[in-house]
Amino acid sequence: MKHLLDVDELNTEDAESILSQAGEYRAAFDAGPPVPAAAPLAGGRIALLFAEPSTRTRLSFEIAGYALGAQTLVVDPGGSSLVKGESMADTVRTLDALGIDTLVLRHHRAGAPWVAARHFGGSVVNAGDGWHAHPTQALLDLLTLRRAFGATTDGTRRLAGAKVAIVGDVRHSRVARSNLTMLGQQGVDVWACGPSDWLRDWPGDVATDDLDAALRGADAVMGLRVQRERMKGSAFDLGGYVARYQITEARMRLAAPGARFMHPGPVNEGIEVTHEVATGPRSLVLEQVRNGVPVRMAVLAAVNASSREGVAG
Amino acid sequence: MKHLLDVDELNTEDAESILSQAGEYRAAFDAGPPVPAAAPLAGGRIALLFAEPSTRTRLSFEIAGYALGAQTLVVDPGGSSLVKGESMADTVRTLDALGIDTLVLRHHRAGAPWVAARHFGGSVVNAGDGWHAHPTQALLDLLTLRRAFGATTDGTRRLAGAKVAIVGDVRHSRVARSNLTMLGQQGVDVWACGPSDWLRDWPGDVATDDLDAALRGADAVMGLRVQRERMKGSAFDLGGYVARYQITEARMRLAAPGARFMHPGPVNEGIEVTHEVATGPRSLVLEQVRNGVPVRMAVLAAVNASSREGVAG
Amino acid sequence: MKHLLDVDELNTEDAESILSQAGEYRAAFDAGPPVPAAAPLAGGRIALLFAEPSTRTRLSFEIAGYALGAQTLVVDPGGSSLVKGESMADTVRTLDALGIDTLVLRHHRAGAPWVAARHFGGSVVNAGDGWHAHPTQALLDLLTLRRAFGATTDGTRRLAGAKVAIVGDVRHSRVARSNLTMLGQQGVDVWACGPSDWLRDWPGDVATDDLDAALRGADAVMGLRVQRERMKGSAFDLGGYVARYQITEARMRLAAPGARFMHPGPVNEGIEVTHEVATGPRSLVLEQVRNGVPVRMAVLAAVNASSREGVAG
Repeated sequence: MKHLLDVDELNTEDAESILSQAGEYRAAFDAGPPVPAAAPLAGGRIALLFAEPSTRTRLSFEIAGYALGAQTLVVDPGGSSLVKGESMADTVRTLDALGIDTLVLRHHRAGAPWVAARHFGGSVVNAGDGWHAHPTQALLDLLTLRRAFGATTDGTRRLAGAKVAIVGDVRHSRVARSNLTMLGQQGVDVWACGPSDWLRDWPGDVATDDLDAALRGADAVMGLRVQRERMKGSAFDLGGYVARYQITEARMRLAAPGARFMHPGPVNEGIEVTHEVATGPRSLVLEQVRNGVPVRMAVLAAVNASSREGVAG
Repeated sequence: MKHLLDVDELNTEDAESILSQAGEYRAAFDAGPPVPAAAPLAGGRIALLFAEPSTRTRLSFEIAGYALGAQTLVVDPGGSSLVKGESMADTVRTLDALGIDTLVLRHHRAGAPWVAARHFGGSVVNAGDGWHAHPTQALLDLLTLRRAFGATTDGTRRLAGAKVAIVGDVRHSRVARSNLTMLGQQGVDVWACGPSDWLRDWPGDVATDDLDAALRGADAVMGLRVQRERMKGSAFDLGGYVARYQITEARMRLAAPGARFMHPGPVNEGIEVTHEVATGPRSLVLEQVRNGVPVRMAVLAAVNASSREGVAG
Repeated sequence: MKHLLDVDELNTEDAESILSQAGEYRAAFDAGPPVPAAAPLAGGRIALLFAEPSTRTRLSFEIAGYALGAQTLVVDPGGSSLVKGESMADTVRTLDALGIDTLVLRHHRAGAPWVAARHFGGSVVNAGDGWHAHPTQALLDLLTLRRAFGATTDGTRRLAGAKVAIVGDVRHSRVARSNLTMLGQQGVDVWACGPSDWLRDWPGDVATDDLDAALRGADAVMGLRVQRERMKGSAFDLGGYVARYQITEARMRLAAPGARFMHPGPVNEGIEVTHEVATGPRSLVLEQVRNGVPVRMAVLAAVNASSREGVAG
């Protein structure tokens, strides 16, 4: 029995076995208690304050914190004092007084984590602020690229000189911005590509509205989500975007042999990328998700090790 | 390094140290369940994705998972990527990549758990899909009936030949449907009863709009919730339903001596059943709730035992 | 002591015992990562049912329950059966059947925790009911005052004769009401102050609309939140209130030398109190938050000790 989907599929033996086990659990349940364990963040308390909705990032941190032995507390921004007009400073000081040692913060305002850090005694981990930054995403993207290109300890050497093309609304993307910095530090040649409107103010060296030029010889192509919610009512021409910028298998053939596709998710299949590319052998999308947990474990462990030594940074 | 706010602030040494630690965590993460302990699911991760509201079922699974030593993660469908248009397949593949080994899914669409199972590496437990099925409810109802009728290991023999009448909107009830199958397998004679509209397409052998006939000689009567939310604006005559189909103490006297009352909850007292019957000595309603936890523990343990052995089913 | 519903029902011995236990917990809490070897509530299950939004109180109980080794389960009132019309009695009996041993309840209706306690086998802890009572807040306020005034075991003697002025909408404040009882028991002279409308039905001995009189010689001033949400559309004159009743540093000079400022939070800085007073050296606001965790640990431990001995209270 791998799944339990319906009783139709339960044979008598399985059903009997479950019921008999359930009978024993019922007896134990009526009788009382069970369990403990040891971990690097045992006794720690991590608050997850996501002022923007998120599934994968929030779950990823929740899994990471638990795996390290910490208590993770989800602070509902809707039900929180933030709605009663309490300022970020007050919220953060309150979390500090409650004994929270790590605050994982996602916020629609760029810079919010820095404001939080000024008022918080423990550590703040930025889980995405506005269009500005998303450092744990950049770290997990780097880990993903290194693993994909076979790099181990000599990772820097292997990635240096590689070309990564980021395609889409780089202007409003914290993922693009953080990857530009992180990958740039590794000697990666980062190209931005999209309609010229979306390339304004791009801090990188290369930006082009010519997709072919961006893809040519790329070792990896990173798609970005088309924020259709945000486009509503604007002059944005979705059909035109798809025609000119959708990542297709045919277009991927312009890239280096064996070039990989990445995307921070959630993916709009059929918009910024075809189903074939997003889920085919080139795709690293699920590898990115999978690497999110160990990266966040490492980040949480690192910031806590620092706090426990009392070293500011 | 006290905070991690942006990759700008990460020096190469810090970044290397995080990535190297993450590499180790990734290896451990891929290798499988860490934290070995007495609890059978220690190190396990159970995601609870309830796309329909629920208290008792969700809490029941949350308690069951915790008691087995697993981490339980509540996936808020409102805040999840599902709202951003991500398909069920994508959501489920993401949860899989996050290291979730068991997905407990409630969904308004019949068949959703099967779609999920096609794309999920771990186990899926159906916690109710549309009007279709609710297998853990049927299991707990069976456990409840067996315990109520004194059956232990010879449970099948004791229940065979018993009569159970399910009264209400059986047509739209996944509970009714799953109980028909489960109790039928045990040799129970399952009657469906309600207004003729609600009996259409009933897959069981006996369906009647005559409550007296259904109750006569029944060993147990299972009431179903009148979905007043769903009836709004329809021609449904609530007063007429109450007059003809409400389970009352007087009507229960038509049933077998000592006949019991069951209900999957939440109960509308004064509508489908009187307060007297719902909370009196005949009632098994709270027994059903109580048996929910050990049944779900048994189900979670069973699907995980299978996953850990790598046996597909 | 089986439940904690109101401070009225706490005898001196129980209150002392809780405060003394809370003092020990506070020391452990300040010392850092606890992880008690044998957690006193291991195997316990605490349901947090907050029918009104709350951040600090809910997190405080969640941290306290976890620190004692219990599973804490957040019951979402929006997604719960309560919305399907299930009565409080049914909800509470369901939680009981699920094996919950402690119900922490916040409810907009005064008296709701008493209704819950009538139907619940385990312990009920009132986390605020309507305008009526908020006993754990009164306990943490008392602990805060004792620590602030240097009292240790002889706390009662030190606080007796002190003057505490509660300023604001005392009429609609469960915090004010519970503090009147709790501090009154300690021999504290409790003054209520605010516009005369807000002083109607005040059960204390002294109520005045003259802020200077209330502040004069006070050892502590407790501000209350101006519920602007609730005032909307009413004739309430916010500017007038601020002019007459805002707690400012200048006004605090009327109080005793070294007088402290308290507030149950969240604070409206610039409305009921200035930023300077709320966050300056007089302020005990964050001390109140910090003491919330050990007080709630002590309360949870006390009610569970009683339940485990089977002694009703």
